[in-house]
Amino acid sequence: MTTASNTRTITKPSTETARKRSHKWVWLFEEGSADRRDLLGGKGAGVAEMTRAGLPVPPGFTITTEACNAFYETGKTFPEGLWDQVLAALAHLEKKTGKHFGDARNPLLVSVRSGAKFSMPGMMDTVLNLGLNATTLKGLTELTGDERFALDAYRRFIQLFGKIVLGIDGDLFEHELDAVKKKTKAESDAALTPKALLDVIDRYKGIVEREGNAPFPEDPVDQLRAAIGAVFDSWNNKRAIDYRNFNKIPHDLGTAVNVQTMVFGNMGNDSGTGVAFTRDPNTGEKVLFGEYLVNAQGEDVVAGIRTPQEIVQMETELPEVYRQFEKIAKKLERHYRDVQDMEFTIEKGKLFMLQTRTGKRTAQAAVQIAVDMVHERLISRKEAVLRIEPQQINQLLHRQIDPKAEVSLITTGLAASPGAASGKAVFDADRAEEMAAAGAKVLLVRIETNPDDVHGMFAAEGVLTARGGRTSHAAVVARGMGKPCVAGAEKLDVDLKGRKFTCSGITVREGDTITIDGTTGRVISGEVPLVDPTMSGALEELLSWADKFRRLQVWANADYPRDAERAVSFGAEGVGLCRTEHMFMEQERLPIVQRMILAPSAEGRQKELDLLLPIQRSDFEGIFTAMDGKPVIIRLIDPPLHEFLPSHETLLVEVTKLEQEGGHAKELEEKRKLLHAVESFREQNPMLGLRGCRLGLLFPEIITMQARAILEAAVRVMKKGITVHPEIMVPLVGHRTELQRTMAVIRHVADEVFTEAGTEVPYLIGTMIELPRAALTAGQIAEDAEFFSFGTNDLTQTTLGVSRDDAEGKFLQFYLTEKILSQNPFESIDRQGVGRLMAIAVDEGRKTRPGMSVGICGEHGGDPDSIAFCESLGMNYVSCSPYRVPIARLAAAHARLQETERDR
Amino acid sequence: MTTASNTRTITKPSTETARKRSHKWVWLFEEGSADRRDLLGGKGAGVAEMTRAGLPVPPGFTITTEACNAFYETGKTFPEGLWDQVLAALAHLEKKTGKHFGDARNPLLVSVRSGAKFSMPGMMDTVLNLGLNATTLKGLTELTGDERFALDAYRRFIQLFGKIVLGIDGDLFEHELDAVKKKTKAESDAALTPKALLDVIDRYKGIVEREGNAPFPEDPVDQLRAAIGAVFDSWNNKRAIDYRNFNKIPHDLGTAVNVQTMVFGNMGNDSGTGVAFTRDPNTGEKVLFGEYLVNAQGEDVVAGIRTPQEIVQMETELPEVYRQFEKIAKKLERHYRDVQDMEFTIEKGKLFMLQTRTGKRTAQAAVQIAVDMVHERLISRKEAVLRIEPQQINQLLHRQIDPKAEVSLITTGLAASPGAASGKAVFDADRAEEMAAAGAKVLLVRIETNPDDVHGMFAAEGVLTARGGRTSHAAVVARGMGKPCVAGAEKLDVDLKGRKFTCSGITVREGDTITIDGTTGRVISGEVPLVDPTMSGALEELLSWADKFRRLQVWANADYPRDAERAVSFGAEGVGLCRTEHMFMEQERLPIVQRMILAPSAEGRQKELDLLLPIQRSDFEGIFTAMDGKPVIIRLIDPPLHEFLPSHETLLVEVTKLEQEGGHAKELEEKRKLLHAVESFREQNPMLGLRGCRLGLLFPEIITMQARAILEAAVRVMKKGITVHPEIMVPLVGHRTELQRTMAVIRHVADEVFTEAGTEVPYLIGTMIELPRAALTAGQIAEDAEFFSFGTNDLTQTTLGVSRDDAEGKFLQFYLTEKILSQNPFESIDRQGVGRLMAIAVDEGRKTRPGMSVGICGEHGGDPDSIAFCESLGMNYVSCSPYRVPIARLAAAHARLQETERDR
Repeated sequence: MTTASNTRTITKPSTETARKRSHKWVWLFEEGSADRRDLLGGKGAGVAEMTRAGLPVPPGFTITTEACNAFYETGKTFPEGLWDQVLAALAHLEKKTGKHFGDARNPLLVSVRSGAKFSMPGMMDTVLNLGLNATTLKGLTELTGDERFALDAYRRFIQLFGKIVLGIDGDLFEHELDAVKKKTKAESDAALTPKALLDVIDRYKGIVEREGNAPFPEDPVDQLRAAIGAVFDSWNNKRAIDYRNFNKIPHDLGTAVNVQTMVFGNMGNDSGTGVAFTRDPNTGEKVLFGEYLVNAQGEDVVAGIRTPQEIVQMETELPEVYRQFEKIAKKLERHYRDVQDMEFTIEKGKLFMLQTRTGKRTAQAAVQIAVDMVHERLISRKEAVLRIEPQQINQLLHRQIDPKAEVSLITTGLAASPGAASGKAVFDADRAEEMAAAGAKVLLVRIETNPDDVHGMFAAEGVLTARGGRTSHAAVVARGMGKPCVAGAEKLDVDLKGRKFTCSGITVREGDTITIDGTTGRVISGEVPLVDPTMSGALEELLSWADKFRRLQVWANADYPRDAERAVSFGAEGVGLCRTEHMFMEQERLPIVQRMILAPSAEGRQKELDLLLPIQRSDFEGIFTAMDGKPVIIRLIDPPLHEFLPSHETLLVEVTKLEQEGGHAKELEEKRKLLHAVESFREQNPMLGLRGCRLGLLFPEIITMQARAILEAAVRVMKKGITVHPEIMVPLVGHRTELQRTMAVIRHVADEVFTEAGTEVPYLIGTMIELPRAALTAGQIAEDAEFFSFGTNDLTQTTLGVSRDDAEGKFLQFYLTEKILSQNPFESIDRQGVGRLMAIAVDEGRKTRPGMSVGICGEHGGDPDSIAFCESLGMNYVSCSPYRVPIARLAAAHARLQETERDR
Repeated sequence: MTTASNTRTITKPSTETARKRSHKWVWLFEEGSADRRDLLGGKGAGVAEMTRAGLPVPPGFTITTEACNAFYETGKTFPEGLWDQVLAALAHLEKKTGKHFGDARNPLLVSVRSGAKFSMPGMMDTVLNLGLNATTLKGLTELTGDERFALDAYRRFIQLFGKIVLGIDGDLFEHELDAVKKKTKAESDAALTPKALLDVIDRYKGIVEREGNAPFPEDPVDQLRAAIGAVFDSWNNKRAIDYRNFNKIPHDLGTAVNVQTMVFGNMGNDSGTGVAFTRDPNTGEKVLFGEYLVNAQGEDVVAGIRTPQEIVQMETELPEVYRQFEKIAKKLERHYRDVQDMEFTIEKGKLFMLQTRTGKRTAQAAVQIAVDMVHERLISRKEAVLRIEPQQINQLLHRQIDPKAEVSLITTGLAASPGAASGKAVFDADRAEEMAAAGAKVLLVRIETNPDDVHGMFAAEGVLTARGGRTSHAAVVARGMGKPCVAGAEKLDVDLKGRKFTCSGITVREGDTITIDGTTGRVISGEVPLVDPTMSGALEELLSWADKFRRLQVWANADYPRDAERAVSFGAEGVGLCRTEHMFMEQERLPIVQRMILAPSAEGRQKELDLLLPIQRSDFEGIFTAMDGKPVIIRLIDPPLHEFLPSHETLLVEVTKLEQEGGHAKELEEKRKLLHAVESFREQNPMLGLRGCRLGLLFPEIITMQARAILEAAVRVMKKGITVHPEIMVPLVGHRTELQRTMAVIRHVADEVFTEAGTEVPYLIGTMIELPRAALTAGQIAEDAEFFSFGTNDLTQTTLGVSRDDAEGKFLQFYLTEKILSQNPFESIDRQGVGRLMAIAVDEGRKTRPGMSVGICGEHGGDPDSIAFCESLGMNYVSCSPYRVPIARLAAAHARLQETERDR
C-alpha cells in the first residue's frame, strides 16, 4: 500500500550519486563550457566558454548547482568534498595569478557571485573585493599606489559582506557613512579623504562586532567560506522566489557560485566598467548598445546610481579598447548565434570580459533580431520562430499614446521599456500592491528601483524612475515583465516620504493620475487616450513563418463587427465566439431588453423581441461581412437574466427610503413592483442557475428571435455575394436532451426563414462543452451536436468548484502565494482536472462523430501553455481575443513543433 | 459518420416482426397465461390464468400491448391483421356464449377495458355495456324482464361512450340527467322511471349528434372498433402520463385491451359487485378484506359514489356465493403466491370473477404479509426481502400523532392510508399544487377524488375525502404514494366553490391548518405534535433477513448525540457524516460563532474559539458514546461563513432607515460596521466560494479547534472504556495539496492532544469527493486520504452546473415535466455524469490505496436506486438520515441480490 509517508523518503538519484566524496563540485573556468549551463549556471558556463575561446577573462572557478541543492538537502551544510575542492581550486588560482590570499604584497581578491541556469538579474547576492583585511589592504595600497582607492574598496567590502553574508541591516552602514560625510563636510562618497575612510572603516567594524557578536573575519578563507554559504542562501530569499514564480522558473534548479579574481574599474581614468549588448535590445538594431562608466566598479552601472555614458563614447575615449571589445562582441554573437549581454571591466587600460549571456530584449527587438538573423543566415526560420516566446508578443501589442492627443508633458526620461500606460502615481512597492489589489491602476514612481521593489512592479501598470539608465534594474525588470518603463527622468524631484514628486512646477501626489510612454520616454500629466497597436513588418514576417509550422487554426472572439475586422487584420481564421448578450447590454438596447424580461407574458416578451430582432440582425450582418468566407460561431443568450436588470440592492434602498419618507405613493408602488420583479430573478448561485440553454428552453421566444436574426442576416449577406458560414452555438448544455430541444427550435426557425427567403444558407448547430457532465457524456451529445467548443472558463469553475469572481479576491491569490496551486487555473488550463475532461470529450465526441470540429473559446484560448495542450489533444482551433491572435498563432506553431519533436 | 438523422430511422426489431400480417395480435382468454404479462397486460394475463384454472370468468379476449405500440407507431392506425383477428375472436365469443352482437333476442354485450403490464388504477379508460342499441335494448329488456334496468344500462352506455370514445364533455350528459330528474322530481338516479329514462336517452342522443356531428353509432361492430381505439388513446392521456412519471413506469410499454362479455351486478338484490383482497391490505392480517354493493355495477364501487358494505356482510346475505368466493380467493393466493386483489360480479346469484391481480398494500401490510408468508412456507426469505420495495418502508417510518397530545377532533373517517400529517386545507388540485410550489404544506380536501386530482395529491401532505371507502380512488392512490389518507369522512359538509368545509359547527377555510391521522381516521383542527415512528416486529424480522443478503454497510448522518442514538436503534453501523457546523447554528452558540467570524485578528478569533471548544467537545463525546465501537466520521467546517451572519438585506434596510431618521448616531455606527463586515463576506456564488477546506487553510485556527475538540473527546470517552473510531473528514478538496496542508494541521493537533493526554486514539483522516476535480484526481488524493466519502449533493451541483436551491423553483420542475430530465438528479444519482466520476474515483483511489474505504454521505445515500449504483461500484457503505436507515438496509440487500443475479 502506498502511503503518504512513503513519499517522504524519495530523493533524487542524481543527488545520491552527488553525495559521493569523489564527486566533482568545483570546476575551473577552463574546464567548463557553454553546454554545462545546468551544472555551472548561465554565468559560469559563459565565462568558461569565453575562457576556452581565449578571451580575456579574469581567472576563477565555479561551484556547481548540484552543490547548492546538496547544501539544501543536508540542512544547509556543505556536501562532503566541496570545501576541499574549493581550496584546491583556490590554490590553482593563486598559482595562475601569482597572487595569494592574505598576501601583504600581492593579495588575491575575488568576487563571489551567484549564477543560476536562468538569468535572474539582481535577485541573488554578490560579494566583491573578498580577501581584503588589515594585511592585504596594505598590499592593495602598495600595488595600486592609491591609498584612497584601497580604503574605499575595503569599506565597500565590509559593508557588502556585513549586509549580505552576516545579514546586518544595510541602513546602519549608510547611517555611519552619512555621519562621516557630514562630519568631514564631504559632498560625495568620492570626496571622502583616506582619513575619513579610515574612520568609516572603524565605525563599520564596530557595527559588525556589535550586530554580529563577533569581530569582522580577518582570514580570507573564512570570508570565502561564509560568502559561498550566503550565495547559496540567497537562492531562496523572498525576491528570488517571487521572480521565479513570475517567470515560471522551477525552484529546484539551485544556483551555482562563481569565484573570480577581482579586477578594478575604479583605478583611475584609464579604468572603467560597462555592460553592452551586441544589438540594441529595445529596437533590435544591429549596433553595439550599452553603457560604461569611467573609474567605477560594475555595481555602479547596474544599480543605476550614477548615470553612465553611451558605449559609443568609448570609441573616442579608449579607442584601442573599444576596437578590441567590438571584435570580441562580434565573435561572441557568432559563437552563440544570439545577441549577447556582456559585462566588462577595464583595469588600467586592460580589457577584461567578466560575463556574457544571452541578452534580454524587448519583444520588438526579439522579433527584429530573429528575423534579421534569418536574413543573415545565422539561424533557420524554425529557430527564429521558436526563439520568440509567444507571451512576449503581447508587448508589441501594447497600446501607445494617441499621436493626435494633446498631452501635458511633465518631463522626458529614457525610453526604457516600450508601451504606454496611465495610472495613479504611487511611491512605494507595498502601497502599489495594496492599491492594485483594491482594483486601482497604479504607476510605480521611485528614485531608482532595486530587487525589493519587484512586487510593486508586478502590481503596477508601469514604472517611472528618476535615476538609472536603460540597463538599470527598473529598465531590465520592466522589459522582462513587458511593462512600460521610463527610467532616468532626472528632472523629477521625488519625495518618497512625502509621497509626491515635483517637476517643472507641477506637483504629483499619491493617487494623482499620470501617463508614461516607455516608447518615447515621455512623462505626462493626467490620463491620455491610447491607441491600439499594429503589427510591424518583422512580426508579420515571423508570423507568416509560424503559420507554416502550425496545425491548429486560430480564431477570435468577436462580439461586434469592429472586433471581427481587427481580428482578421491580426490573422484570425474565423470567429469562435460571438456573445450575443453583449449586444443586449448597449445603452439604447438595454431598456428594451429589460422590458422584455419583465413582461408578464410570452406576448409581452414577443413585442420587445420584435424590436430587438432588426438590431441583432444588423450586428450579425456586419460580422458576417467582415468575416467573408470564414466561419462565425454565434452563441445564443447565456447569462442569467438578472444581469440585465437594475441592482436589487439599489432598489431595496430606494424603496426603504420612499417608505420612510411617506407620500410618493405612485413612485413607491412602481419601485416596489420593480423590486419584486427583480427579486423573482435573483439567485443564490447565478453561475449555476437559470442561464445558458436553460433560458432558451423556458423562454423559447428569445432564442427564436436570435436564430431568426442570425439566419436572416446570413441570407441577406449571402445575397450580396458574400460567403457566410454561420454556426449557432448552444451554451451550458449538460444533457443531450437540452441540445435536442434547442436544436428543434432553431431548425424550425431556419425552415421558416429559408422558405421566406426562397434560398438556404448552410449552417451548423453545435454546443459549448462547459459543464463536467457535458464532457462526460460528449459521446451522446455528439449524436446531435455538429461541433464542440470548450468554454474553459465555466468548465474550470465547475470542475474545481471555484467561482472566479469570488476566488480571486478571497483565496486564489493566497493559494498561489502559498503554493497550494502552482498556477492560476483561470490563466492556464488545469490539465489534470479540466484537461482530463477535455480529453474525454474530444475522444468520445469524435468516436460518435468522426472528424468533428472541436475548438476552445474560453480565455485560455490565448494562453500559450493552454494552446500547447489543445494541440496535444488534436483540436481544430483555438479562439481568443483579437489582440491575442498573433500570440496564439506563434504559440500554435511552438506547440506543433514541440509535439512533432516529442513524437520523434 | 453517425448523425442525428440516423437515429430517427431506428425502430425496434420486435415491432418489425410484429408488422407481419400473420402476427398474433389477439389472444382468447383461454389461450393466455399469467407469464404473458408483458404482452397481455396484468388484467389480461390475470383473467387468462383464471380461465385456465377453471374459475368462473366471463369469456373474452385480449388485444396485445404490441398492438397498442404498433398503433402509435403508425400514426394511430390499427396494424395490419388486427381487426380481422378481433372479428374472429368475436365470432368465437358469440359461439361460446350463444349470444350475438346486435341480436334482438340474445344480444352479446361486452366491456372494453385497458390493462397495462403494471396496474394504473383508474388512469385509463373503460367502456361498459358495449353492443347496446335500439335493437339489442329490446333483447336485453326481454332477457332480463326488467325494462328499467335495460334502459338504465343503455343510457349509461351512451353517456360513457359519448364521453370516452367520442370525447364529449361529460358535464353535458350530467346536466340533462339533472334536468330530467328535476322535471320528474326523481330524488336519485334509481328513482327515474322508464319513461324518464327514455327521455334521458333521447336527450343523450341529441347531445351526441350535436357535439359529434353524427348520430350515435348503432352498429355494435362500429362501437367496438371505436372503443378499442379510444382505449389505446387513453394510454397517453395526461393523468396516465403523470401516474407513470410518479411511479417510474416506462412510457413505451403500451396497454392491452380486454374485450369481455358483460355480466350485470345490478339485476336485483341477488346481484351485486365487489372488490376484495385475500388479506387486509392495510394491516396485512390474514382475513378476506373488501367491499361489495348489492344491485350495482363495478364502477359504483371503485368511484366511491356509494359507500359499500364490508365483504363479511356477504356471508350473511349470500352465504353460498360467499363460500365459493372464499375458496376461489384461497386458490388464487396459493396459485400466485401473493395477495390478490379481485373484482367480482354476482349476476342473479351466479359468481363471476372479473379480474385478479397482485394486491396493492400499505407498507405495513406488505411487510406483515411477506413475513407471514415465509412462516407459512409460501415464499422464501429472499423472496420476502425482494418483495418489499425499499421506498415503501418509508411509510412505516411516517410519523404519528403524539398519543399524549390533546387534540381537537372534528370528525372521524376511514383510516385509508396510514401516517399523520398537518397542513393547510385546500379544496382543489390546482390550488394544492400552486400552494405547495410556493412552499406551503397542504392537505387536499375533496368530496371524493378522481384521476384528475392526482397532481394535487402529489403536491399534498395527505388527502381527506367526505365520500368513498378504503378501496376508493383516494385511498388506493394515497396508499400508493405513501401519503396519509382519511376517506369517507361523511359528516364533512364540503363546499368546494366556497373553499371550505363545515362539520360539528366548525368551519375550516382554505389556508386553515388541520391534521389528519390516516392510521386511525381522525380529522383534527389545527396542528398537532407528531411523534417519531418505531419499527414493528415484522419489519425487524424482515430487515434481519435483508442484513444477511447485503454487502454494503449502512451508516447514518447524525449531527447530535440524539440522532446517533436513533440511527443505532434503526440499525446504523456507523456515522458517515457529522456536520460540525450544525452545532454552530444553535441559539446559544451562534453569537460566539459570529463574534469569532467578525474578529479582526487571529487572536480575536482564538478567544471565541476557546469558548466553542468545550461545547463541540461535549457534542462529540455524546456521539462517540452513542456509537460505541462503531466508526464516526466528523466533517470539518464546510459552509461559507456568511451563513452564520445576520442577513445582509435586513441590515441594509435597517441602516437605510436609521440614516433617514437621523439621530441614533451610535446605533447607526454599529449597524454600519456590521453591514460592512457582512458585506466583506458576501459572495456572488457562495456554493463555489470560500468554504470547505478553503476556510480551514485561510483560518487554520478554526480547524485546529475542531480537531482538538474531536480528539480530546475521543481521548475522554476512551478513558471511560468506550471504543472510539474517530475519522476526520476534510470537505471540498479539489487539489491534493489542499488535503496535505489540512492534514498537517490536524496531525499537529493530534500530536499535542495525545502528548497532553498521555495516550493515543487511532484515527483516520479522509476527504469528501464532492468536486469533479477531486474525482478526476482521486488517484493522487488517495496518496494522502485514508478514506473517501462521496458528497453527491455538491458533486451533482458542480457536475451538472445546477444550483439545487435555484433550480428547484426555477427550471428543474419544468425539466422533469417536459422530460428534458427523466429523473431528478438530486433524488437519484445521475449515473452517466456524476456516476461516471464516482466510478473513476473508486477505481483510481483504490489503485493508489488498495482496499480503501469508500462511502457516500449525500442525500442519495438513502435512495434505493442510488444505493444499487453504490453496490455496483463496490463501495463500502452508504450513509443516510437515521429514518432512512431501514430503507437503505433493505435497498442494499436488493442491490446485492440483483448484482449477484446479474453476475451469474
